[in-house]
Amino acid sequence: MTAVNRQILLASRPSGEPGADNFKLVEAPLSEPGPGQVLVRNHYLSLDPYMRGRMNEGKSYAQPQPLNEVMIGGTVGEVVASRNEHFQVGDKVVGMGGWQEYQLVDASQRGVLQKVDTTHVPLSAYLGAVGMPGVTAWYGLVKIIAPKAGETVVVSAASGAVGGAVGQLAKVRGARVVGIAGGADKCRYVVDELGFDACIDYKEHRDLKSLSGALKTACPEGVDGYFENVGGMILDAVMLRANAFSRVAMCGMIAGYNGEPIPMAAPQLILVNRMKIEGFIVSEHMELWPEALKELGTLVATGRLKYRESVAQGLENAPEAFLGLLKGRNFGKQLVKLI
Amino acid sequence: MTAVNRQILLASRPSGEPGADNFKLVEAPLSEPGPGQVLVRNHYLSLDPYMRGRMNEGKSYAQPQPLNEVMIGGTVGEVVASRNEHFQVGDKVVGMGGWQEYQLVDASQRGVLQKVDTTHVPLSAYLGAVGMPGVTAWYGLVKIIAPKAGETVVVSAASGAVGGAVGQLAKVRGARVVGIAGGADKCRYVVDELGFDACIDYKEHRDLKSLSGALKTACPEGVDGYFENVGGMILDAVMLRANAFSRVAMCGMIAGYNGEPIPMAAPQLILVNRMKIEGFIVSEHMELWPEALKELGTLVATGRLKYRESVAQGLENAPEAFLGLLKGRNFGKQLVKLI
Repeated sequence: MTAVNRQILLASRPSGEPGADNFKLVEAPLSEPGPGQVLVRNHYLSLDPYMRGRMNEGKSYAQPQPLNEVMIGGTVGEVVASRNEHFQVGDKVVGMGGWQEYQLVDASQRGVLQKVDTTHVPLSAYLGAVGMPGVTAWYGLVKIIAPKAGETVVVSAASGAVGGAVGQLAKVRGARVVGIAGGADKCRYVVDELGFDACIDYKEHRDLKSLSGALKTACPEGVDGYFENVGGMILDAVMLRANAFSRVAMCGMIAGYNGEPIPMAAPQLILVNRMKIEGFIVSEHMELWPEALKELGTLVATGRLKYRESVAQGLENAPEAFLGLLKGRNFGKQLVKLI
Repeated sequence: MTAVNRQILLASRPSGEPGADNFKLVEAPLSEPGPGQVLVRNHYLSLDPYMRGRMNEGKSYAQPQPLNEVMIGGTVGEVVASRNEHFQVGDKVVGMGGWQEYQLVDASQRGVLQKVDTTHVPLSAYLGAVGMPGVTAWYGLVKIIAPKAGETVVVSAASGAVGGAVGQLAKVRGARVVGIAGGADKCRYVVDELGFDACIDYKEHRDLKSLSGALKTACPEGVDGYFENVGGMILDAVMLRANAFSRVAMCGMIAGYNGEPIPMAAPQLILVNRMKIEGFIVSEHMELWPEALKELGTLVATGRLKYRESVAQGLENAPEAFLGLLKGRNFGKQLVKLI
């Protein structure tokens, strides 16, 4: 076991678009576990859009990421030393290990570290389809959109970890599912591999009228549910096609993460169409995770919930992979492989 | 009984702000009731913001008002001739009589005409606090905002028929209630007569920062519920003060009725604050009217739900009164007295 733990800290807060210089790679000494503690070697680090919000100082999803501390993030790994009776060396675990190669945690705190079964589900999936992104998809779809069979559900960022799961969960429930993604490759994947009914390449539709027209073609009976991962013009275009009593689950607004608010063009459509728009953060609904993870795990284990991963190699490449994610350069769940 | 019925028709659709020339006063012959029919002399006509939406051709709340037909509208009146066994001459009734002095209706259709009891509730109140505006207030407050005791509820157009009822219903439920209204007189009325905890005069706050600052002072613990009657800058200012898990009942957006959509400045706050924004039209929730009317009628009869009326005299003055309503010139429920 190496005695050094490499870590990435938040070195400064971005003004506008973040860059590699907002991060700093450092080496820290690695301690042996104390009583109740567990040392985990992280195998995969999860990169997620919410981290962009944490980089800001102001009010966002949650507390800002403190400066000069290890960047927050979900991890999966293996126990390499334990002084906690519930964890053995070799156990596979999921936790919030952050952007570092090892984590030393007090595992007696409930929920900090969870053992996972990798017999039928790959370890990395616990950061994606059977982890936070999967539960995010499940919550927004099942608890906010609540589609009936035959309704039409639209999903933005459809080839991503969350969007892909939303669409497949909606198909399981008998909905017509239309994705929105950037580029022909992603759209082909969304339709051919994930089984969506259609996918719109937003890069081919640069203005509201064009995108709204494409939605009209893809959703001949209008839009009953929309899972919002993006914001900006895509939301405006979907609202123009929204049916009476349609529901919008607002999960992310990547388009606005860099500080400039992007207005909603026609909020009166909320009234005209009697829409419901609801924002949510999945970590505030922990009571539903077991139900969600059960469905997601079963679907992955039986091959009915598919996903793709973009894997960067090595901790030192995490910042660049994260910046790419914010620009939509990933294809599927963005991970960093640390081992 | 006169043999002539004066009526106001929609003569043309407005482009932008409507004017008196969009309406036309005509005289029509008055027929005796046929089998099953009832002739009602309308005592009061209700003027409501939703009528502006009906004047447009495009998609709005409902079907557009047809050209050269009697303007739609709620009325209360008295049966003056009846060939329907359920209605007697002298019965007081509420219905959708439209902008005219008499209505001849097939009263066998369920819900077209309803008898009302004026022992403890004045006839005109069935167009206001114990009518559509009251039920609108009730639905948005009880079914969407659902305030808990101690929460803060903000109401725009607070001196109006809907807004005034929202605030008083919220007070009954133990909420702190802050109104927004135009002018010192209206604000005084909202606090002194209706019992709101505070009222902000939006005319004293011409920009977002100023209005948002006034809201911060009036709502030291933030905003948990907002009843939206106006749209535009007021909604933006409230969203800046919204608490986590706050709810917005979107009932009207007068600010945008003239066709120009007014953007929502910072929709990402829906996500940041995990808000729920829901539009509704009270006529789509008829199953809840009995429950709502029971509470509203009891509160009015016992003096715990107060309201004010702006009464224009004579059918010929209805267009002007309606245009004034759209500009906020009314003070309380806008009626036209026809008798």
